[in-house]
Amino acid sequence: MSKREAPFAYGGLDRVMHEKARLGLLMSLMTHSKSLAKGPAKGLAFSDLKKLCGLTDGNLSRHLHVLQEAGLVEIVKTFKDARPHTQVRVTAGGRKRFLDYLGELERVVRDAAPAAKKKRKAGSKLSPATS
Amino acid sequence: MSKREAPFAYGGLDRVMHEKARLGLLMSLMTHSKSLAKGPAKGLAFSDLKKLCGLTDGNLSRHLHVLQEAGLVEIVKTFKDARPHTQVRVTAGGRKRFLDYLGELERVVRDAAPAAKKKRKAGSKLSPATS
Repeated sequence: MSKREAPFAYGGLDRVMHEKARLGLLMSLMTHSKSLAKGPAKGLAFSDLKKLCGLTDGNLSRHLHVLQEAGLVEIVKTFKDARPHTQVRVTAGGRKRFLDYLGELERVVRDAAPAAKKKRKAGSKLSPATS
Repeated sequence: MSKREAPFAYGGLDRVMHEKARLGLLMSLMTHSKSLAKGPAKGLAFSDLKKLCGLTDGNLSRHLHVLQEAGLVEIVKTFKDARPHTQVRVTAGGRKRFLDYLGELERVVRDAAPAAKKKRKAGSKLSPATS
């Protein structure tokens, strides 16, 4: 389906990455990888991701599994100070696909600009919210 | 969960509106309503939404039902030239909630800026995609 045929189909919003929790996980991994320009990212620990995304152990495990199955992240289980340690990082392919996804998200925000602008213009003249 | 506690939780990404097809539907309704500043929006016909979002009859009906149940849209069934006609428009509350959602989406795009910038800087030095 081309953009001209269905401009609001947003085919680039891959459901694996668009899901709220997984979007937060990928955002965390992409923005907290300090060595991007120099080489492969070191990634983040399971406990860091839990805090950054406000997820429970169970939810985090489940969503990481979906991301791993899709080839977007790598999960490395090791020991650190004699305790089990889980490190997660984005794959090279995952990085590319997430940046493509972000491009589509930017398009959504750009498409929405006329509506958001009208709101600012109309200001308090808009009727109060009812749902 | 506050933003400081879990900066990547993105609590404002309401699942009803964040789903790809429903996001496209709300975007269509919000950006094709020409009378926003003057009064209630006229909305769009079922057939227009089908084309704009590239959805089948079944999928469109299903997603519109979800949006209606959440109080985000109103569905008016009438007759036009002796044929059944379905018109859909955003409610006042739906408009407000969708603009709040868009604010959160803008935050995601802003949060992603460092990663997207690094990509442009690194350019062709990044390894090719593998997944």
